[in-house]
Amino acid sequence: MNVSWHPQKVSHLQRQQFNGHRPVLLWYTGLSGSGKSTLANAVDALLFEQNCHTYLLDGDNIRHGLNGDLTFSDIDRVENIRRIGEVSKLFIDAGLIISTAFISPFSSDRKMVRSQLPEGQFIEVFVDTPLHVCEARDPKGLYKKARKGEIKNFTGIDSLYEPPENPEIHIKTGEPGFETIEVCAQHIVTLLLNMGIVSAK
Amino acid sequence: MNVSWHPQKVSHLQRQQFNGHRPVLLWYTGLSGSGKSTLANAVDALLFEQNCHTYLLDGDNIRHGLNGDLTFSDIDRVENIRRIGEVSKLFIDAGLIISTAFISPFSSDRKMVRSQLPEGQFIEVFVDTPLHVCEARDPKGLYKKARKGEIKNFTGIDSLYEPPENPEIHIKTGEPGFETIEVCAQHIVTLLLNMGIVSAK
Repeated sequence: MNVSWHPQKVSHLQRQQFNGHRPVLLWYTGLSGSGKSTLANAVDALLFEQNCHTYLLDGDNIRHGLNGDLTFSDIDRVENIRRIGEVSKLFIDAGLIISTAFISPFSSDRKMVRSQLPEGQFIEVFVDTPLHVCEARDPKGLYKKARKGEIKNFTGIDSLYEPPENPEIHIKTGEPGFETIEVCAQHIVTLLLNMGIVSAK
Repeated sequence: MNVSWHPQKVSHLQRQQFNGHRPVLLWYTGLSGSGKSTLANAVDALLFEQNCHTYLLDGDNIRHGLNGDLTFSDIDRVENIRRIGEVSKLFIDAGLIISTAFISPFSSDRKMVRSQLPEGQFIEVFVDTPLHVCEARDPKGLYKKARKGEIKNFTGIDSLYEPPENPEIHIKTGEPGFETIEVCAQHIVTLLLNMGIVSAK
């Protein structure tokens, strides 16, 4: 077998042309209960309908799999985001629109991921739901536990959430124009069309 | 924003139907210099020509990225394979044909990855090149260094390679029917067609 023969590798550009859209990372960030995962899934479904090749990373498929060995310590939280960023880079290289839905409270972590991608491929989506709204929803009862001290370092209670300063997309949930998940999701897809990332079907 | 509204998540089946082929993991294993990565790239290019959605994980995109924090210690080698398996699962869930090209010398590690996937989705490709051939090629000069003791725990020299017992695909490089990379790659694609994983274009 002649190993000096070089088979043509499939290039990033070929994968992108095949898929018919630009590969990007939609990085959803926001408090627990802000609606990140729900919104990311809704956008994902709309993009899929538009024939985009997409995938979503969230707690469901990351925490018990790739990052199942990590705790919630500060050092492991950084590693958690680092790995999510690295996996996202692989999906982008494969030509997909990859979405991630994690609280990702620290600016420095989000900037680290942004800095590793070419200009324009990291799209920060700030799911801006006020703390009192998230806490009133408390879908998993986590805020209640955090207030009782049963959970430590809970974002918004005894750990900081650093809001994005200049997110590419800012969803002010509940405010005029952002009343429902459907409206918010359609708003994001329209922005992606306007940015030239996806094309109308 | 009504978070109790459940947007339709894109299902694994929908992604698979959209792509038009079954998602599988092609797990290439073999000695350093066996031609794993070259062969995996050649197969990937052929599958891409057949309109398959594919991606390849190898040292180039894994060792300096996701697994850049790992050493070559025994415990880190296990973690290396674990993460590659977990990332492969995500790509399969996304509907792609994902290939991995790593020595992966230990049966137990390969079995761990196999056990985490549904029956039929883990396809072990044994790139069976004899040690003396790999060592004569020595494309990166690693065997020479290992023989001098400059590299420790080098597979085939002072660390074991456990050949697969029942690989789905067995490529006996250099033997009749497996003379060139092109022939080997075409052989694998034909097997995937026969297995009903991909369809003729």
